[in-house]
Amino acid sequence: MTIETISTNRSHGGIQGVYSHTSAETGTTMTFSVFVPEHADGAKLPVLWYLSGLTCTHANVTEKGEYRAACAEHGVIFVAPDTSPRGDDVPDAEDEYDFGKGAGFYVDATEQPWAAHYRMRSYIEHELPEAIAANFPADMARQSITGHSMGGHGALTIGLRNPERFRSISAFSPIVAPSEVPWGEKALGRYLGTDRASWREYDAVALIEDGARHDHILVDQGTADDFLVEQLRTHRLAEACDAAGTDATIRLQAGYDHSYYFISTFMAEHVAWHAERLKL
Amino acid sequence: MTIETISTNRSHGGIQGVYSHTSAETGTTMTFSVFVPEHADGAKLPVLWYLSGLTCTHANVTEKGEYRAACAEHGVIFVAPDTSPRGDDVPDAEDEYDFGKGAGFYVDATEQPWAAHYRMRSYIEHELPEAIAANFPADMARQSITGHSMGGHGALTIGLRNPERFRSISAFSPIVAPSEVPWGEKALGRYLGTDRASWREYDAVALIEDGARHDHILVDQGTADDFLVEQLRTHRLAEACDAAGTDATIRLQAGYDHSYYFISTFMAEHVAWHAERLKL
Repeated sequence: MTIETISTNRSHGGIQGVYSHTSAETGTTMTFSVFVPEHADGAKLPVLWYLSGLTCTHANVTEKGEYRAACAEHGVIFVAPDTSPRGDDVPDAEDEYDFGKGAGFYVDATEQPWAAHYRMRSYIEHELPEAIAANFPADMARQSITGHSMGGHGALTIGLRNPERFRSISAFSPIVAPSEVPWGEKALGRYLGTDRASWREYDAVALIEDGARHDHILVDQGTADDFLVEQLRTHRLAEACDAAGTDATIRLQAGYDHSYYFISTFMAEHVAWHAERLKL
Repeated sequence: MTIETISTNRSHGGIQGVYSHTSAETGTTMTFSVFVPEHADGAKLPVLWYLSGLTCTHANVTEKGEYRAACAEHGVIFVAPDTSPRGDDVPDAEDEYDFGKGAGFYVDATEQPWAAHYRMRSYIEHELPEAIAANFPADMARQSITGHSMGGHGALTIGLRNPERFRSISAFSPIVAPSEVPWGEKALGRYLGTDRASWREYDAVALIEDGARHDHILVDQGTADDFLVEQLRTHRLAEACDAAGTDATIRLQAGYDHSYYFISTFMAEHVAWHAERLKL
């Protein structure tokens, strides 16, 4: 569980770091960023995970996410992993921004040639948390998760499968039903194969239909998001929750698009919302 | 004074735009960004100018500056110009990050081959303000100015030369005495020639020595800034103010470096400080 420090910068009273480590799950070097707010010696802080969207690395949210002021205020560690394995040994889909590198979809692939390296589910659910616990002042009994777009899908599915581990789940413009939309059908079909039953644990709407529940879900979606109608289909999450008799706070934000200009607008509110639940 | 809209994104309740126009001063197309907070129909908002540092365009602060929440809260328009003329017709110093494109130093060059295009002083002092006044809900009677590094030099010198126009001046890790440091000696020497008397109006310390004054100056400087000792030399500004019997708030921020992780930490405080003076 040794990690290498790529950079550290003092910011908002804490330390914004970028780190790398050798992942047994992906068989590659993985890079991630961690913001640790100022804290008392020996204190352990709760952890908010942020999963990024298609084409992103840890860097997009680290530079543009505007989370540090809120994390410093509430005393929350912020962890931003990469979105796929990287490197020359990792198979990729050239010229496809929505599959392969930068598009791991937070699954453990079962199909060849993806199965060896594309193990982002196990990486996020097991391996990276161990590295965080071993190297940062993190209270792993207090975790929450959020994400954007493909990463919103990741946050919802990982959170719904692990409600005991994550006290709250939020998402910015998530893909809520990948089985039903082009991005998801392509990715799940190629990573997992044609048996759609195997896709259901990677689909937030299907997970809720199949009985998964979480009492604390918050979703923000911009109404001017070009991907809303075809790829994100936020209303499917609302319908699934209604049908299941469970609750989620799903907000449509007028005039906002799919960019970090949207995410950064509501980031402080999400951090505060998670922090409230992490302090219980 | 027509401008072209490159992009607009809703953010923090307002509109973050990127625009371009044909500049008569530089003889090129110039790009800049403007954030306009939500406001009442017909309202005119005060303007905070942000001048960027070496190698930057408008984009760095627009993406990483974390100013929008504070500008929205205080109702301040934020304008971020480019740092030099651009394009194939503009002479450049290849492989020199600190001269030529991206390094206009906010001067009107008098030496060849720079004099034709490198007119960032007149562009910032006259031409761009007219474009802002003509195209945005800006109250040009209420302006303030800030900037980073080379842009901190720009903010201090432009502000000190125009105290009636700018109600307050702030800077993040500014070059305070370019005549005395390698970055400045190189740039001023090549843009303005060897007569150092002509450099003094582009040097904050020299301007104060020569009688320029401003009642509202705020500077933040990180102590872990790699450029502090050789290029920035913040103490020279303090010394010049002391010798002149004038006041400036100069703060050393422990552990902070030269990056946007530093700028973004103190940005909200600078915006609030300017806003207080813009509301008088």
